[in-house]
Amino acid sequence: MNRLNEEAREKYFETIFKSLKNQDKNTFLEYFLELHPTDQVELFQDLYKDKRPMFYEYLSAEQFAEIFQGLEVEEQKEVVKELDKSYAASMFNYMQADDIADFLVEINEPHAKDILNAMDKEEADEVIELMSYPEESAGALMTKEFISIKATDTASEVMDQLRKEGPEAETVYYLYVVDAKDKLVGVVSLRDLIVAPLSETVENLMSTQVVSVEAHTDQEEVAQLIKDYDLLAAPVVTTTNELIGIVTVDDVMDVLEEEATEDFDDFTAAKGATDVNITAFSAAKKRSPWIIMLMFFGLITAGVIGQFEETLEEIVILAVFIPLIMDSAGNTGTQSLAVMVRSLATGSFERKGLLHTIKREFGTGLMLGLICAVVLMIVIPFLYEGGMVLAAIVGVSLFLTLSIATIIGAVVPVIIDKLKLDPAIASGPFITTVNDILGLLIYFSIATALLDYLPR
Amino acid sequence: MNRLNEEAREKYFETIFKSLKNQDKNTFLEYFLELHPTDQVELFQDLYKDKRPMFYEYLSAEQFAEIFQGLEVEEQKEVVKELDKSYAASMFNYMQADDIADFLVEINEPHAKDILNAMDKEEADEVIELMSYPEESAGALMTKEFISIKATDTASEVMDQLRKEGPEAETVYYLYVVDAKDKLVGVVSLRDLIVAPLSETVENLMSTQVVSVEAHTDQEEVAQLIKDYDLLAAPVVTTTNELIGIVTVDDVMDVLEEEATEDFDDFTAAKGATDVNITAFSAAKKRSPWIIMLMFFGLITAGVIGQFEETLEEIVILAVFIPLIMDSAGNTGTQSLAVMVRSLATGSFERKGLLHTIKREFGTGLMLGLICAVVLMIVIPFLYEGGMVLAAIVGVSLFLTLSIATIIGAVVPVIIDKLKLDPAIASGPFITTVNDILGLLIYFSIATALLDYLPR
Repeated sequence: MNRLNEEAREKYFETIFKSLKNQDKNTFLEYFLELHPTDQVELFQDLYKDKRPMFYEYLSAEQFAEIFQGLEVEEQKEVVKELDKSYAASMFNYMQADDIADFLVEINEPHAKDILNAMDKEEADEVIELMSYPEESAGALMTKEFISIKATDTASEVMDQLRKEGPEAETVYYLYVVDAKDKLVGVVSLRDLIVAPLSETVENLMSTQVVSVEAHTDQEEVAQLIKDYDLLAAPVVTTTNELIGIVTVDDVMDVLEEEATEDFDDFTAAKGATDVNITAFSAAKKRSPWIIMLMFFGLITAGVIGQFEETLEEIVILAVFIPLIMDSAGNTGTQSLAVMVRSLATGSFERKGLLHTIKREFGTGLMLGLICAVVLMIVIPFLYEGGMVLAAIVGVSLFLTLSIATIIGAVVPVIIDKLKLDPAIASGPFITTVNDILGLLIYFSIATALLDYLPR
Repeated sequence: MNRLNEEAREKYFETIFKSLKNQDKNTFLEYFLELHPTDQVELFQDLYKDKRPMFYEYLSAEQFAEIFQGLEVEEQKEVVKELDKSYAASMFNYMQADDIADFLVEINEPHAKDILNAMDKEEADEVIELMSYPEESAGALMTKEFISIKATDTASEVMDQLRKEGPEAETVYYLYVVDAKDKLVGVVSLRDLIVAPLSETVENLMSTQVVSVEAHTDQEEVAQLIKDYDLLAAPVVTTTNELIGIVTVDDVMDVLEEEATEDFDDFTAAKGATDVNITAFSAAKKRSPWIIMLMFFGLITAGVIGQFEETLEEIVILAVFIPLIMDSAGNTGTQSLAVMVRSLATGSFERKGLLHTIKREFGTGLMLGLICAVVLMIVIPFLYEGGMVLAAIVGVSLFLTLSIATIIGAVVPVIIDKLKLDPAIASGPFITTVNDILGLLIYFSIATALLDYLPR
């Protein structure tokens, strides 16, 4: 069943909630089972906790397996605790191996072993295999439910096989051709198959240069590949080209969103705290190391200003422009950083080259610095006594600071990327702090040098 | 043909470049036409400009159409200038309507009209229709090359139709069922079709509650829908449910990436400047209004400090902590902002509710503020004379500032979203500036109040 429109869905939800309240199992099943799985999951998430046991009672383990697969890991952990042991074991047998693996890697080992032991041996082995791949790799992302065919099969034989295996498979739209040793040798799209004469062999239909990914390939790379080549799925192979699974486009869409969120987290040094499902305490725990670290950077900046205490004592008004220098340096550097982070993520440099982009950022910085300096030199004399010299100090400092800020913003993420360090080091706050320190050093150095020309 | 591995591709590229140099058309065509279209595009982009005329000469307009479709708009504009008029006209006739429309909306109107006039009437009409939808809507994103069938058709009749229309269609994996008035009444997946008996009618196979989008729906919503329901395509309908096109999953993947980049741009107020293909001058032009606006905010912050000039004159050391207060306020607010921006983008609040998230952010802010305050009150007495009172002023200010900063970071984007204003207003730099001003006001107010207790 496909998705209902918003209004119809609301009505269904209401009827289902009411049926649970009235303990009316028949009405519940009639309406609930008509919903699209995505909506079933949403309804379950909307449920009050005290209604959930009734839910497990009304649905078979097979029916509930579909819903469980759609929940987030944190919710799954909660739900598993509420389930009867044998119901849970049965549910896991009905789930797909990749979904089970995703769940089991998140819970503690003894509990995961219990679940694996209660499962059918064959399925448990599949799960254990998937769990053996590194997190965020093609192997961890893939499903084992794919259709493989032989080069010697005819189109009509393949159609027969599809009728049998189709309902189990994750996708029937790409059929992967393997040799006697399970090595990937080609691919036939269902599209090509249905337009072919029934007696044609796969060998004559297949394309032999298949795009495939190795099981240890990073999921982001897999996503980019599927996106760039407009694929519906990509086969996953071992280092010896043995076909072991497929990654489908719907998994990859989740990856793209996940990676965009990760970039965001890194960028703001929020470190996973953009997850709205965690408590304030966990969020504070995750974020505080960064905030405290950055606060210590703030103490370094304080030290820089401290060095110029004498200058400040003579001309207190200099303190007034500290925020302006800091903000402008931070904003410009952050923009450059954003350019680089997105470009690294989408691979959009590959063509023009890094140096080109860095040079462009520097050029942009020079121009931005010049514009800002000119504007300030016009505005400041109207606002503050001290007039022209003060304006010149702030203007020139700003020009130099912005030029350097763009370079720092552009170069640091590239270095981090090359050194394969944690990209969060190149986060906005870090770049901002570095630029603050440089900006204030430039500003106070120039001001100290020109102290005698300033009115006091 | 599918994609080559990295090494094989390099070899192909080399051979092709050499064949162009030697003006060896046969070798060029032999190797070039074997490449995957995505790789063909990449090869063209890697080409030196002086080799491009030979490229147009060797390839037919039909062959080049495929490559032209894969280029970015800026590149397309350049290439069109280099093409012979009749070659260009012929090329446009071979392109898909949605790709032509994407290009024509970006160039000036007289030129677009010339191109439309040179095209086949029927195709030109399709293009004009697609151009009539607002940018970033389902209508602008959709393709008209879809397969529609009748409810009374049998499975075998549909298979015949597929063999005929399949090669032209954007996807054959979903077949949309329409009534006599072209209204969308159902959908059959190719998967369901191939497992059905050949004499079965579409009516018995189709699902009647089809997820569809109206032509004016925002592309981000279309992308989320396809992602949430794991679809390969979504049908686009008029307000009267007439089927007019489809949006496929590969278009949607580009949208997801585009929207993530847009969020990034908004967040950093980089305003489209994350595009690495524009010049330093255009980047500076795009970014400077924001940087200058934010600089004026910096002057407001300067004004705030100016108000406390007397306090500063008495205790110059107070200036030293300006960066620390500003950075901490900015960082904490930016983290909260990131939480909200991503949550709004991925719709992850819908369940828990906004208020819940805002409350959580406030809770997080209180805890972060407390931790930072405690750390500072321990550290500052060791670093600066003035000891305990100074530490208390900075600590208490920071606690208050961080608590408020999280609320500002969390609430402002929601207000912006509700008021449907430009989300860039809620960018990191803006939130940071507001928090800076509040933080410094708090800090200097407390310091002024406690002036008599501070050693000088």
